[in-house]
Amino acid sequence: MTDAATNMRLKLPIICFTLEIILIILFGAIVQYDHETDAKQWHSKNHSDYENDFYYRYPSFQDVHVMIFIGFGFLMTFLQRYGFSSVGFNFLIAAFALQWATLMQGFFHGLHGGKIHIGVESMINADFCTGSVLISFGAVLGKTSPVQLLVMAMFEVTLFAVNEFILLSLLGTKDAGGSMTIHTFGAYFGLMVTRILYRPNLDKSKDKNSSVYHSDLFAMIGTIYLWMFWPSFNSAITAHGDDQHRTAMNTYYSLAACTLATYGMSALTAHDGKLDMVHIQNAALAGGVAAGTAGEMMLTPCGSMIVGFLAGIISVLGFKYLSTILEAKTEDPRHLRGP
Amino acid sequence: MTDAATNMRLKLPIICFTLEIILIILFGAIVQYDHETDAKQWHSKNHSDYENDFYYRYPSFQDVHVMIFIGFGFLMTFLQRYGFSSVGFNFLIAAFALQWATLMQGFFHGLHGGKIHIGVESMINADFCTGSVLISFGAVLGKTSPVQLLVMAMFEVTLFAVNEFILLSLLGTKDAGGSMTIHTFGAYFGLMVTRILYRPNLDKSKDKNSSVYHSDLFAMIGTIYLWMFWPSFNSAITAHGDDQHRTAMNTYYSLAACTLATYGMSALTAHDGKLDMVHIQNAALAGGVAAGTAGEMMLTPCGSMIVGFLAGIISVLGFKYLSTILEAKTEDPRHLRGP
Amino acid sequence: MTDAATNMRLKLPIICFTLEIILIILFGAIVQYDHETDAKQWHSKNHSDYENDFYYRYPSFQDVHVMIFIGFGFLMTFLQRYGFSSVGFNFLIAAFALQWATLMQGFFHGLHGGKIHIGVESMINADFCTGSVLISFGAVLGKTSPVQLLVMAMFEVTLFAVNEFILLSLLGTKDAGGSMTIHTFGAYFGLMVTRILYRPNLDKSKDKNSSVYHSDLFAMIGTIYLWMFWPSFNSAITAHGDDQHRTAMNTYYSLAACTLATYGMSALTAHDGKLDMVHIQNAALAGGVAAGTAGEMMLTPCGSMIVGFLAGIISVLGFKYLSTILEAKTEDPRHLRGP
Repeated sequence: MTDAATNMRLKLPIICFTLEIILIILFGAIVQYDHETDAKQWHSKNHSDYENDFYYRYPSFQDVHVMIFIGFGFLMTFLQRYGFSSVGFNFLIAAFALQWATLMQGFFHGLHGGKIHIGVESMINADFCTGSVLISFGAVLGKTSPVQLLVMAMFEVTLFAVNEFILLSLLGTKDAGGSMTIHTFGAYFGLMVTRILYRPNLDKSKDKNSSVYHSDLFAMIGTIYLWMFWPSFNSAITAHGDDQHRTAMNTYYSLAACTLATYGMSALTAHDGKLDMVHIQNAALAGGVAAGTAGEMMLTPCGSMIVGFLAGIISVLGFKYLSTILEAKTEDPRHLRGP
Repeated sequence: MTDAATNMRLKLPIICFTLEIILIILFGAIVQYDHETDAKQWHSKNHSDYENDFYYRYPSFQDVHVMIFIGFGFLMTFLQRYGFSSVGFNFLIAAFALQWATLMQGFFHGLHGGKIHIGVESMINADFCTGSVLISFGAVLGKTSPVQLLVMAMFEVTLFAVNEFILLSLLGTKDAGGSMTIHTFGAYFGLMVTRILYRPNLDKSKDKNSSVYHSDLFAMIGTIYLWMFWPSFNSAITAHGDDQHRTAMNTYYSLAACTLATYGMSALTAHDGKLDMVHIQNAALAGGVAAGTAGEMMLTPCGSMIVGFLAGIISVLGFKYLSTILEAKTEDPRHLRGP
Repeated sequence: MTDAATNMRLKLPIICFTLEIILIILFGAIVQYDHETDAKQWHSKNHSDYENDFYYRYPSFQDVHVMIFIGFGFLMTFLQRYGFSSVGFNFLIAAFALQWATLMQGFFHGLHGGKIHIGVESMINADFCTGSVLISFGAVLGKTSPVQLLVMAMFEVTLFAVNEFILLSLLGTKDAGGSMTIHTFGAYFGLMVTRILYRPNLDKSKDKNSSVYHSDLFAMIGTIYLWMFWPSFNSAITAHGDDQHRTAMNTYYSLAACTLATYGMSALTAHDGKLDMVHIQNAALAGGVAAGTAGEMMLTPCGSMIVGFLAGIISVLGFKYLSTILEAKTEDPRHLRGP
């Protein structure tokens, strides 16, 4: 039996069972239903059923859930050597991260009589935090074992919650729904890691691409789900009513404008006149992230489109510039070829 | 023209048209809109539009619909020889079963003045019943023609409705939304059939796997959709308000805990240190099914995780144990190799 | 550098940036939030948050969005030579068309003090209009550059809005939510173009099918998403309450009946006893389109099934008949082989 096999055979079960048992004990000790999921608390007040937060947020939650498990899961499948790992490991670390995030975020978001109260909003927050872990995962894909990924997830989720706490509570940043901090931290942190560690990996795989056709189609599934559901991502925990409505619409137009900018820039910077999958993926990320920071505000549809348009241009340029520098640094003779 | 071609050419059209014409006649005779889909009945009462059951249940219905047609459709595509049959036949028998289930369930759920009344809840119930047919379909994939599958679907849907009637009306089992009976019958009946007929088939296909990479990715699409939308499945017909909210959340944590348990057990029982697609698929099924039976209750998040965790362990162990026995019984010399 | 490369390298960026800048200027000049997305207007009236149109329509909008980007995107991937173009170009022209449609439809739907007011309903309308462009796109796939496609989209969206205006305002057709005109124009216009230009293309590709298995599975993803979410498509902008509920249910049964009719007809007309992907795709289109024109009315479930059943039969027959004629016209010696 090889070392890698032993690693999987023994270390993975040990870390999986240990982490899950710790999670179960901690959940048993400090996690409770909130006033909208607890039967007694909900019925003790004079609510109509349709006022339960579930109906405001659950459709958005499921869209976010699809982004996390299908979107991020399939985003990296164009690296065809790592296709199945991409989806399979994504699944494992996301399932862990969402539980751990419930605890970490619940702890820093404020306890209720020493307990963490959870409902659909905390589920969305947990998925958001998981998203930031998965972006980082993309950067180290193919270099790490599932055991290392679970450890990375544990630390990143904790750091995420601490960072959120510092911004919201210590620095007093106004961000009622946690939307801005979560998006910005998650996406930009992940993008930065991705930018730095990304290219060598991708290049290696491109030399071995025997089935670009199907690999790219799988990656497009991931990309398009992220793009389509980003309006739900940005509006999932904004205030009820016009806020959710406006945020979703701003993001919709930001993404559309970003897509045209991205295709234009991608064609402009490509050397062989072909559209680059990685650039198209930027269309999914940049436009959504850019609209995420101010999408709740009265940005106007036009303002949203300007934000998305600039995000698309900057994203492709930044990608080209950074990867050229990185390739030069790694003394790769191919650095003049561009991304 | 071969026999198989004649079979398809003549028998399939005959059974399709006969069944559909019978369905249309029966629907014409005994099916009516319920008080929420009938214009006159809805407007005769003093409702607000947002009180229509459509807004409580339709997003969950669409999630269930995706589970039925994408989830189950792609679940078996890892058997790459049967990939297209899996999706194409799944589509046909599901389209038939949901119509037949509307009649059978409507009949046993109680008539209104001799008529079956239908709305979004009956659509969800019809999809649930269809789900149990599709699980059984997985067990006989590659051994049966579409004609046989339609006949099987007709009998299974009927049996399903009779069983539901016995449990709910004759034995007086408490199960307001039909949730428990439907899930448990559907999933466990299907799983049992799957366990018994499954392995020989799978093994055969594994000997011919020329493109495991893409087949597994398609199967992951099915698996992950089932996993993601199981909270919607379990909460789709529970009571409005905190019940739907709590059921979805309990299932969410049960599934997450089940996933870690499944990956751990899968690595522990694998001989070559590789994760098995079939085990990962168990993560989607076991955790959701386990939370389905009691997910509506005040199970606590911790309780849900314990249920999911145990379900994951038992499911992988049961699968390994049962398939070892079955392989031994079929006198396959490879039975020592494990699942 | 080849001509094609120059085309992509220079023309695509120019048209992308020009169109997007024109869109941004026009949006800045004449597009505003409506009374449900504008914070001041929404809060100036005495609404409850759950009365915001967002909660009535956003889940349906996201289903329609998936149909546009995943459904239409993957519909043509069975033409394996054009798989990636299908998805990638679909993405680009859809992102443009939805912005342009917002302007064109807003202009013809009536201005408010010289301004176009937008919200979730206009987003759905924009997606609908985009859908009709994408159906036409399927007809010219593989023959056109992205630059030509953007120009085609600009003209088709404009024509779409003019046609809608003529029907609704000049001829006084009753169609409160715009449902009938949009569906019928989009689908039948597209289907007609598809029927006329389609076959030669398809035949060419069939001669080169080295990977039908996976290509067909990708195409099934597109097909099944269109099928599953058509109830949302038809009900997305019908009146709140029983209307949305009834429309979704009518479409559900129409699609199910259409599927059985389609499989039956497909087997009956096939020469080798095999089901044809293109026929199965008709099941997704015909049943939904047929129910779209009258789905809001008190059609009864039985009536919906009759509509779907006939639509399925006519669609396969029409396809076979038209394509035989077309192949005969093109003097293809293979015209006796059938579709």
